[in-house]
Amino acid sequence: MASKALVLLPFFILLVVSSAYPSKKPYKPCKQLVLYFHDIIYNGNNKENATSAIVAAPQGANLTVLAGQFHFGNIAVFDDPITLDNNLHSKPVGRAQGMYLYDTKNTYTAWLGFSFVFNSSDYQGSINFIGADPLMNKTRDISVVGGTGDFFMHRGIATLMTDSFEGEVYFRLRADIKFYECW
Amino acid sequence: MASKALVLLPFFILLVVSSAYPSKKPYKPCKQLVLYFHDIIYNGNNKENATSAIVAAPQGANLTVLAGQFHFGNIAVFDDPITLDNNLHSKPVGRAQGMYLYDTKNTYTAWLGFSFVFNSSDYQGSINFIGADPLMNKTRDISVVGGTGDFFMHRGIATLMTDSFEGEVYFRLRADIKFYECW
Amino acid sequence: MASKALVLLPFFILLVVSSAYPSKKPYKPCKQLVLYFHDIIYNGNNKENATSAIVAAPQGANLTVLAGQFHFGNIAVFDDPITLDNNLHSKPVGRAQGMYLYDTKNTYTAWLGFSFVFNSSDYQGSINFIGADPLMNKTRDISVVGGTGDFFMHRGIATLMTDSFEGEVYFRLRADIKFYECW
Repeated sequence: MASKALVLLPFFILLVVSSAYPSKKPYKPCKQLVLYFHDIIYNGNNKENATSAIVAAPQGANLTVLAGQFHFGNIAVFDDPITLDNNLHSKPVGRAQGMYLYDTKNTYTAWLGFSFVFNSSDYQGSINFIGADPLMNKTRDISVVGGTGDFFMHRGIATLMTDSFEGEVYFRLRADIKFYECW
Repeated sequence: MASKALVLLPFFILLVVSSAYPSKKPYKPCKQLVLYFHDIIYNGNNKENATSAIVAAPQGANLTVLAGQFHFGNIAVFDDPITLDNNLHSKPVGRAQGMYLYDTKNTYTAWLGFSFVFNSSDYQGSINFIGADPLMNKTRDISVVGGTGDFFMHRGIATLMTDSFEGEVYFRLRADIKFYECW
Repeated sequence: MASKALVLLPFFILLVVSSAYPSKKPYKPCKQLVLYFHDIIYNGNNKENATSAIVAAPQGANLTVLAGQFHFGNIAVFDDPITLDNNLHSKPVGRAQGMYLYDTKNTYTAWLGFSFVFNSSDYQGSINFIGADPLMNKTRDISVVGGTGDFFMHRGIATLMTDSFEGEVYFRLRADIKFYECW
């Protein structure tokens, strides 16, 4: 009996230590989605295809070319199709709607406020996001701050990756959405 | 004793099942508010009465008329009175402050980021909202992502309804705010 | 044994009452940070030093001078250094990135949507904020709606104070960030 207790002891010490210095690892998502969205910026010549438009810019910039200084100060409004795979022409399962703004003068970073809006057999409801997007990083984490419908009251983290881009007109983001609070 | 256990068994099975497949229905708000807010858009001739102004627009649009293509790309900043009933002239109990942006080219949808700010005998503090507003739908759900004062750390859902509108200058929204996380 | 139970009784009654009528006071932050951030608005002549720029304004206003009527309708995008003390020239520990918009016609109030972004030995990750900032008040509370990295899934309240300002070009904010939900 005594020897069994001694054997177990290191195990319990380990547990206590891991609880006192928790790593992020132990948290497992209660729900997870991987989705793609596709942004085509209006450049003066693509009115039909464009899914976003520059609507604000600092002094001296115009609204059909992203501003100099790493686009600092540009705000774009978007309504991008969401697809299950990385193909722009796949059937959309929803729309990514909201805005992004470029907010650094010496590199590319953005700040995002937007929603995923679903009204299909796949999903119903919406997921609301805000966060900083240092877009030169391979992956960037933003916050899922709420949801409605199928995502009622959910919270979590979305990991964004730039999956593809063409010049400054098209880019595709992969969103790995991990909910840690499900209802 | 044995027969009693058998009678209870189906009841426990039921509990387990309802927990494994939870519907949205069982959640009851811990607090609920119904409020109205009133938006009068500046059109170049109503400086005194206007409570909001268009401040951003895509290329080719101006700031005193909502843009074509379903106002896609317009951002409006607002400071709207909040009332307890649907009368614009009732004593305001607070202000709805923030922004909305129109974000679809082929129908009317908006994205909202705003706060209800209270400093009265009715309420003290603020409620913070973000979310997608597909405004042609009779009701739309957005997220309550936080609050301060009387609404310290609250989260929930606000169901918006367009209660009235006059052309493209005035609209009134009914907000049915349901908190599911109260502190 | 019986007398001991009687002694304990009032203590339990107290617990029940304090739970039924909770005041805001009992909540203690699970984590707290005090940080400063510094905003220098672009005025047409300070391109090198400026950390923010006016990018949207109502009809008739320009982008190098804050608009009249208490700047109603101005949106500024910012990338401000965050410091541990109130010295603009201290080594930054991160960047405050996002936007503010002025949203009242008869006093100074703003609406904020931004993130603190950290990538240093002090902190890793981000904190996401939204809320109303009635900036003539000595202190203003906004919501911490999420976080990533060291601040994974955190929620709380940030109390802002205008620590200093110079005309309409420089201001420094003190942010007392109190997390009430830590993970």
